[in-house]
Amino acid sequence: MIPRYTRPEMEAIWSPQTRYRIWFEIEAHATDKLAELGVVPASAAKAVWKAKDMEFDVARIDEIEREVKHDVIAFLTHLSELVGEEARFVHQGLTSSDVLDTCLAVQLTRASDLLLEGMDRVLAALKKRALEHKMTVCIGRSHGIHAEPTTMGLKFARFYAEFARNRERLVRAREEVATCAISGAIGTFANVDPAVEAHVAEKLRLTVEPISTQVIPRDRHANFFAVLGLIASAIENIAVEVRHLQRSEVREAQEYFSPGQKGSSAMPHKRNPILTENLTGLARLVRSAVTPAMENVALWHERDISHSSVERGIGPDATVHLDFALHRTASMIEGLIVHADRCRENLEAHGGIHNSQRVLLALTQAGASREDSYRLVQRNGMKTWDEGGRLADHLKADAEVTALLSPAQIDGCFDEAYHLKHVDTIFARVFG
Amino acid sequence: MIPRYTRPEMEAIWSPQTRYRIWFEIEAHATDKLAELGVVPASAAKAVWKAKDMEFDVARIDEIEREVKHDVIAFLTHLSELVGEEARFVHQGLTSSDVLDTCLAVQLTRASDLLLEGMDRVLAALKKRALEHKMTVCIGRSHGIHAEPTTMGLKFARFYAEFARNRERLVRAREEVATCAISGAIGTFANVDPAVEAHVAEKLRLTVEPISTQVIPRDRHANFFAVLGLIASAIENIAVEVRHLQRSEVREAQEYFSPGQKGSSAMPHKRNPILTENLTGLARLVRSAVTPAMENVALWHERDISHSSVERGIGPDATVHLDFALHRTASMIEGLIVHADRCRENLEAHGGIHNSQRVLLALTQAGASREDSYRLVQRNGMKTWDEGGRLADHLKADAEVTALLSPAQIDGCFDEAYHLKHVDTIFARVFG
Amino acid sequence: MIPRYTRPEMEAIWSPQTRYRIWFEIEAHATDKLAELGVVPASAAKAVWKAKDMEFDVARIDEIEREVKHDVIAFLTHLSELVGEEARFVHQGLTSSDVLDTCLAVQLTRASDLLLEGMDRVLAALKKRALEHKMTVCIGRSHGIHAEPTTMGLKFARFYAEFARNRERLVRAREEVATCAISGAIGTFANVDPAVEAHVAEKLRLTVEPISTQVIPRDRHANFFAVLGLIASAIENIAVEVRHLQRSEVREAQEYFSPGQKGSSAMPHKRNPILTENLTGLARLVRSAVTPAMENVALWHERDISHSSVERGIGPDATVHLDFALHRTASMIEGLIVHADRCRENLEAHGGIHNSQRVLLALTQAGASREDSYRLVQRNGMKTWDEGGRLADHLKADAEVTALLSPAQIDGCFDEAYHLKHVDTIFARVFG
Amino acid sequence: MIPRYTRPEMEAIWSPQTRYRIWFEIEAHATDKLAELGVVPASAAKAVWKAKDMEFDVARIDEIEREVKHDVIAFLTHLSELVGEEARFVHQGLTSSDVLDTCLAVQLTRASDLLLEGMDRVLAALKKRALEHKMTVCIGRSHGIHAEPTTMGLKFARFYAEFARNRERLVRAREEVATCAISGAIGTFANVDPAVEAHVAEKLRLTVEPISTQVIPRDRHANFFAVLGLIASAIENIAVEVRHLQRSEVREAQEYFSPGQKGSSAMPHKRNPILTENLTGLARLVRSAVTPAMENVALWHERDISHSSVERGIGPDATVHLDFALHRTASMIEGLIVHADRCRENLEAHGGIHNSQRVLLALTQAGASREDSYRLVQRNGMKTWDEGGRLADHLKADAEVTALLSPAQIDGCFDEAYHLKHVDTIFARVFG
Repeated sequence: MIPRYTRPEMEAIWSPQTRYRIWFEIEAHATDKLAELGVVPASAAKAVWKAKDMEFDVARIDEIEREVKHDVIAFLTHLSELVGEEARFVHQGLTSSDVLDTCLAVQLTRASDLLLEGMDRVLAALKKRALEHKMTVCIGRSHGIHAEPTTMGLKFARFYAEFARNRERLVRAREEVATCAISGAIGTFANVDPAVEAHVAEKLRLTVEPISTQVIPRDRHANFFAVLGLIASAIENIAVEVRHLQRSEVREAQEYFSPGQKGSSAMPHKRNPILTENLTGLARLVRSAVTPAMENVALWHERDISHSSVERGIGPDATVHLDFALHRTASMIEGLIVHADRCRENLEAHGGIHNSQRVLLALTQAGASREDSYRLVQRNGMKTWDEGGRLADHLKADAEVTALLSPAQIDGCFDEAYHLKHVDTIFARVFG
Repeated sequence: MIPRYTRPEMEAIWSPQTRYRIWFEIEAHATDKLAELGVVPASAAKAVWKAKDMEFDVARIDEIEREVKHDVIAFLTHLSELVGEEARFVHQGLTSSDVLDTCLAVQLTRASDLLLEGMDRVLAALKKRALEHKMTVCIGRSHGIHAEPTTMGLKFARFYAEFARNRERLVRAREEVATCAISGAIGTFANVDPAVEAHVAEKLRLTVEPISTQVIPRDRHANFFAVLGLIASAIENIAVEVRHLQRSEVREAQEYFSPGQKGSSAMPHKRNPILTENLTGLARLVRSAVTPAMENVALWHERDISHSSVERGIGPDATVHLDFALHRTASMIEGLIVHADRCRENLEAHGGIHNSQRVLLALTQAGASREDSYRLVQRNGMKTWDEGGRLADHLKADAEVTALLSPAQIDGCFDEAYHLKHVDTIFARVFG
Repeated sequence: MIPRYTRPEMEAIWSPQTRYRIWFEIEAHATDKLAELGVVPASAAKAVWKAKDMEFDVARIDEIEREVKHDVIAFLTHLSELVGEEARFVHQGLTSSDVLDTCLAVQLTRASDLLLEGMDRVLAALKKRALEHKMTVCIGRSHGIHAEPTTMGLKFARFYAEFARNRERLVRAREEVATCAISGAIGTFANVDPAVEAHVAEKLRLTVEPISTQVIPRDRHANFFAVLGLIASAIENIAVEVRHLQRSEVREAQEYFSPGQKGSSAMPHKRNPILTENLTGLARLVRSAVTPAMENVALWHERDISHSSVERGIGPDATVHLDFALHRTASMIEGLIVHADRCRENLEAHGGIHNSQRVLLALTQAGASREDSYRLVQRNGMKTWDEGGRLADHLKADAEVTALLSPAQIDGCFDEAYHLKHVDTIFARVFG
Repeated sequence: MIPRYTRPEMEAIWSPQTRYRIWFEIEAHATDKLAELGVVPASAAKAVWKAKDMEFDVARIDEIEREVKHDVIAFLTHLSELVGEEARFVHQGLTSSDVLDTCLAVQLTRASDLLLEGMDRVLAALKKRALEHKMTVCIGRSHGIHAEPTTMGLKFARFYAEFARNRERLVRAREEVATCAISGAIGTFANVDPAVEAHVAEKLRLTVEPISTQVIPRDRHANFFAVLGLIASAIENIAVEVRHLQRSEVREAQEYFSPGQKGSSAMPHKRNPILTENLTGLARLVRSAVTPAMENVALWHERDISHSSVERGIGPDATVHLDFALHRTASMIEGLIVHADRCRENLEAHGGIHNSQRVLLALTQAGASREDSYRLVQRNGMKTWDEGGRLADHLKADAEVTALLSPAQIDGCFDEAYHLKHVDTIFARVFG
């Protein structure tokens, strides 16, 4: 967890205090049910809840753990220090993983909820900017080369659509990790009735894990981190676009640059796209959680504990950094300065060659073969590219072309509305 | 694509002939609609279909491509060689990626269908063996150490549940890649009406991509390959379990060993779990597609073509190897020899210490503190482990224990049915 | 192995024929030594060499393998079909992996040699272009934003230096995989004398593996593939640079575009950086071998065979694709068109703000505090950026600046030679 | 950085205080040289050193950074607060990355030194245990199946050899990252003389980076993290071995279990290989740094800052976790309990089939064909495996065998020394 890429809301989910609080709730609810089933005295269940508003002493638990080398036992020992003798009935028939894995489920669902908030903020920002720039015309590019006109709004709209897909993926991934397992040492419920699991699940708003071993199966988590990797890649997608738009030669957009900000210690004139460069790096970091999460799936027999250290790393790190990245993405989009004038300048910088396909089609319609049409347009297109001037003028000076198309027909290939006529259709598809 | 890990059905999806066939269908359907819209002559649309039952000459297309250095143009040139002059109207307003990406969508959905068949075969095998061995008792293990009894059926059942989850994920991932984009050079439909896209989509049983640039957004594909990575990890999960069960000291299960098979060139006695070791490796291979697929998401502007070479590799490789691995997994499970007698021997090898938790609970119920109970059980458990004998006997010889539990109560902690009483519950959850 | 990204030289290394040829050599040399040691009859050693110029029948070996399910046994059976009865002495005391792993060592060293040739071609091309464009001035960029002048030659030179480092890494990695292990079933030389290993190693120009189990330790291979990943990343580094230089707004360089080549099926004017985009994708593919190669290190006990399927994939794929990519990189660099005029235009497009740091230093030298100097330069730099004009003029119109610097001193901050005075130094460091 | 997997020595290298201390040294040494060159007043250089023994106020620097959004400028501002007016001459002609990248080089070399210490401790432990158990015979296994005898010492020895190779790799990787770049905004030394770089490099015991842009090229760092990934994989290799040896059915080795330690909250008898399971997970974590480090290589033009956030994560995390893992590995090996008696039991559990190859060779020597020999040994080997008894006895009861070998010859195939005769040779190769 890199402090500068951490928001306190997400950090709090992974704090020891939060973890012990969730452990407590799991144990307390489980004890309630165990009491109801007559396995432990009702007084025990009641006693446990005494700790409901107490603070857990993290340092004390650490101290105990150093001796017993077992975190859940350390916690239970501390719990008995807080609530007394009756605590011996707590955790009856449970195994540590029942507590740890169910706790992780709670943390991941909470983390998901925060991430969904972040995604919603990104979605709202993208939608707003898409509508705002729906008709801000700019050149579309393939291979970094000018192709045909598009609009800045369409750029925002496609990121919106990608984020909307990722949102759905996260909602499903959240659902998939939101399971509770209280099934005992090997998942057979030998020492704990399934009713306990059902009760705790309900109280914590989880569903029951249909079949666990000692642990909840790790494909659920691997799927979760894979979705985080997809969201990170979507952020990278936006970031790379903005970095391109901001480069000196393009300058169609620019990250907001606050008064007092310094772009470079050496070159005072610089305004760098550092937010989106940073987001590009954070995307790599978040994505690096995917492979170890998949390596965690194949545990030995009914469980080994190799996944645990991995999750102590990627659990907090991937969610914290993605959470931060989402909010940075949102505020970057919100503040992004779009230079419509530069969009226009770039669009017109190459003599209208972005209409070359339209000329090609007109020639084909006028009876030329596809190959001939291509040759004629390429000849004049490359002339425009290499020598300057306007494509329309070069075409009008080409006898082979004018044998097929009149000057008016040529001019007719160069109106902009032609390229924009379906923007509404696309917006309707994306935003409904 | 490694020949020995390739089934012809999946290989065929990725053959040049299949690809050109799909390209043809896309172009032909598109031309139909263009004719209907009056963009091209009806005769052109009719002419194209002449190639319906013709074989495409892959070598000829390759030859043309070497000159024009563009695969779709090479194909179109060859098509005009086959159907003649009218072919110049084909591809009107389309861009290469309209064809390539829609074709990839068709290939990935076909690949998904084969993979789903493979998964169904694995699921059927797992279910059959789960029911067969529902009550074949064996020791459950955590950390590779004997824990409490479980059944072989529960092992199969948990793999079944994981595969069932992955099946759902693949169904959704298939849906997500099943989109058609015919939106022109930059996704604006400047030169092609959206109706063409809708028509082709319907004919190819795809849905319309709501917003494309020149390409279909790559998060769809990244998600697809991530799901393949999850399925591969599930296969590894099964494979690791079987490899453990087959090891000399465990021998609870064994891959089917055919007559005539040689396990080792040097050591004739060997029967090695080579299928599952092989599956472990294939899982690593398939999983290696996930990261490059995610790196493909952030293309430059409206597209760059860096994703293409990646997909030429991982598209066939990941689907072909996973397809093979699924069928190998299925036949391995179908043929797996389960040694119920060895399960029993291993279960009983450690003097009944797998009931230690039950004794712990009994002591707690009898009034001992959790800490004391733990100490008493651990003391006798370790004695059993280190010195042999039966835990029940050691407990009966421990005065601190007998002060709390009668010999009959001690013996009562060692009946097996106790561990199996919820197997039905779990099976009902998994298999309905 | 993607056919279009495959050169026959590298493909041949991985063909079955080559593999069997290497197996044969290992077995024949081993038999020679075994005969010398008196373990097998001299006649046997002699007999084996009869197959020296025979062609192995790959289909026949495949057929045998289908029955015995063991590749080395299938080969030995076929060998005895070729050389007769005496063949029963071949492979005495060896284990399959002795043959397989030593063969892989030979293949990887041959692959390395081809890769080193490819790297040398890249290095030569980079050096040539570096010297050619040593003083072709262009703007240097950080964050995609104009910074200070550099030269095209320096760009080539830094890629040269990176490639030179990678070359050294590959030389070492080659050395590390160039080991021979003939140590028997478990690495103890129980059934084969170490002298056999020494003899085969010498004949195949390998070194002896100091300690093997059944296999050569896989850290050697993991290291090898990691180095391939680094080389792939170096290729990506060049590719990304060229793609940037070629984009429409920059146009400082351009991949060679052959007559007859078509850039786009839809837009005839386009000349796209498709080679470097392709290289970017190939880099991702090659890099994807690194993680599975590392996952192969931790085999179970003295070996499991999970690494084998991985290596059947990444062995050929990573070397073949990287080999192709190196030659594509080399020819791309060799043919790259550098537009010195566009370099100049871009350099001068922003009113000389790339000298801002120099002005900053001059102001500091003239007595202003760092903070004041920064403020003054940033004020005029941003004015130049936003409003146009030349930085020198804006500075001369700023009273706070002119209080510190004379017009002549300001002008003195804008000569180009200042930026180029150490190009020689750097070239001397890189090229000696 | 996961607190429980962090040693303070390594953590300290990455603390803000350490970073600012290194920045200070770079700036102070650079200013010395600048003064010597007459670029800044000698008094300035002298003034800077006033901060030599001052504590930097991290909170104050953070506060400044929040305003200027630039870490090095914030530091320089604070430095001027400490040493006064003269500080305006500090950082003359330098760019932030000169400081940041050279600082990273210092941190990575210090981290390397700690890692090398950790590796040396592992190496020492492995060597000690190897010598101790040089002749502790145990069964060697391939595919998890008993093969032929080996010794526990050989296991330790092979891990030693792998670690020794990785040590060399780390020494080289350390050297490769130990470079100093003080080359200005774009690497041209426009505003700073190369002599400054040389001076700082010498003072910090680094070498001069031959050609930098704004940054030190990232292949150096990618190579470094790849080596960490290899070391992590070597740790996993050891860990997997120990986990196997400790499993209930094998029990040939066991992690040291301290008094008071609790293996399971539920099952008091358990002693789990949690250290090695933990190391397996840590290996995955460390390895996850490799791919993002390689993705960092291809920065845009003369630099973008995407690598920075990645390195803020993987820099500390990978070194800290690997450092911890090394020491955990070392102490695990130091304390590992080897059960020589269990090794013997397991070795003898299968009726001597581990000598099957030897019998095979004897039969071949006695004149049987390879195929017949194989068939005879396999027949009796499988009988031994399936029905029990001793292989020697089964062979003696097989007429086809006894036609070729006398009972004495058969017995002669079962002496253990045969397998151990080259242990000395191997030890000499590994330990010299």
